[in-house]
Amino acid sequence: MQPTPEGPIAILAGSGQLPALVADALARAGRDHRILAFRGFADAHLRDRADAVADLLDVQRATACLRDWKPAAVTLVGGVGRPRPTAVLGAFSAFRNRREIGELMARGDDQLLRGVVKLLEDQGHAVVGAHELAPGLLAGGGALGRVLPTEDDRRAAATGLALLGALSPFDVGQAVVVAGERVLAVEGPEGTDRMLRRVGRLGRGWRLRRAPSGGVLVKTAKRDQDLRVDMPAIGPRTVREAARAGLAGIAVGQGSTLVLDRDETVREADRLGLFVIGVPLPWAEAP
Amino acid sequence: MQPTPEGPIAILAGSGQLPALVADALARAGRDHRILAFRGFADAHLRDRADAVADLLDVQRATACLRDWKPAAVTLVGGVGRPRPTAVLGAFSAFRNRREIGELMARGDDQLLRGVVKLLEDQGHAVVGAHELAPGLLAGGGALGRVLPTEDDRRAAATGLALLGALSPFDVGQAVVVAGERVLAVEGPEGTDRMLRRVGRLGRGWRLRRAPSGGVLVKTAKRDQDLRVDMPAIGPRTVREAARAGLAGIAVGQGSTLVLDRDETVREADRLGLFVIGVPLPWAEAP
Repeated sequence: MQPTPEGPIAILAGSGQLPALVADALARAGRDHRILAFRGFADAHLRDRADAVADLLDVQRATACLRDWKPAAVTLVGGVGRPRPTAVLGAFSAFRNRREIGELMARGDDQLLRGVVKLLEDQGHAVVGAHELAPGLLAGGGALGRVLPTEDDRRAAATGLALLGALSPFDVGQAVVVAGERVLAVEGPEGTDRMLRRVGRLGRGWRLRRAPSGGVLVKTAKRDQDLRVDMPAIGPRTVREAARAGLAGIAVGQGSTLVLDRDETVREADRLGLFVIGVPLPWAEAP
Repeated sequence: MQPTPEGPIAILAGSGQLPALVADALARAGRDHRILAFRGFADAHLRDRADAVADLLDVQRATACLRDWKPAAVTLVGGVGRPRPTAVLGAFSAFRNRREIGELMARGDDQLLRGVVKLLEDQGHAVVGAHELAPGLLAGGGALGRVLPTEDDRRAAATGLALLGALSPFDVGQAVVVAGERVLAVEGPEGTDRMLRRVGRLGRGWRLRRAPSGGVLVKTAKRDQDLRVDMPAIGPRTVREAARAGLAGIAVGQGSTLVLDRDETVREADRLGLFVIGVPLPWAEAP
């Protein structure tokens, strides 16, 4: 199947706000689109506006939708968690052999999603990232709100980015918390919100007093990451969780992190006294 | 003050089993030693056999003991957590300026301990590691118990060691959990036991199914780490926590990790069906 330039954009929608934000951006731009919402993941209000609802593992249903829609491009947005290995084996067995699936499941979420992108591309689809369809969601450089980072905060952010760069070859999270030169947490499969709650508990423990600088959440896509899958994002909830963990602010990779609901994110950051900045990636090419 | 070769070994004792194990090893070797137990950290039964008990931050008392004992060497063993910054400022202010202390506190535990080593060395003491006094505690190569790792487990261990190597320049923990190629957790200041409990919760969550391989705890000293401070250790409790988290086994860096209570560690590993292996470090010099 060849992409049809005049076709709609197909949104394969998982959990969270991102699918609706991308659909809104396309609607505002007058771009025709179709939504396939994954049952058990997509928000109820997104399912109401979806053109089709399918089980995540019902590959035949998804394939039939795409055959029908003849999209110009397909985008995978929102979280899809991680299905049971046995369910994956059942659903995908028509497409790939069991050994390949087993190997895929032993890898991280990003490799799993990369496998889905490969599958879609093998079927002739053009796969694009949310940031290409809704560039307004992408974090730029500089401060987003009124609060500015101190020199110490900037150094902690630089340490966090260097750490995320060193972690890039590994299947691990896209966020860390750094206070001074001290790494308070590295995100695992539990996600950013739970990592921040862990940092909050560290601060309250008698053994670990918070370092003077307060700490900075640093989040960005990995070095050489395919930005069409698992693009890191922050939003108002991230700001609230960071405040609850006692952090001074948030630093995101410029051009490689999404800011969901920018207005509310800035409002919450200003209200809670946190900075939110986009910083250039040390490994990015010069413009 | 110059070290007196005929003097005793001074053990500055924090929490955990290690101080008693080092004292036992010295006693068995007929080596004279003195114990300074830190109040609030050292075990009660160690405090009973200690020659002196002092507050962690009572630097004058510790210094007076060492002046009195004229030790051949000093060793810092066991955990000391992290004191309140204000308490540190008060106690150390006679020795170092506030800016230096503030910078020290912003760094990780290992840098803090390195500061104490520097202080002791500045006073003319020879500082040695627990592994030099009790080499029998050091992990060797190969399997410790009856259970052997699979090829998948060995690959996960190699991934974990590579990850710990990449993390070495940063002030972060000395342990990770890897399943397949997937990193399930990176240790922060919360320590190994809490990290393992976090991995156990991941496995039970609906979003995250355990990867086929079960997962391996990988623990080792950092690349270029000063082994006289914060030497990583495992013991029977580590084995029990790893089993509870659903892991297949434990891999430790050969010659750079301590095994506390080896007999009981092996017994627990055999009973619970976990492997425990010492693996050569990819960054170690050839012998």
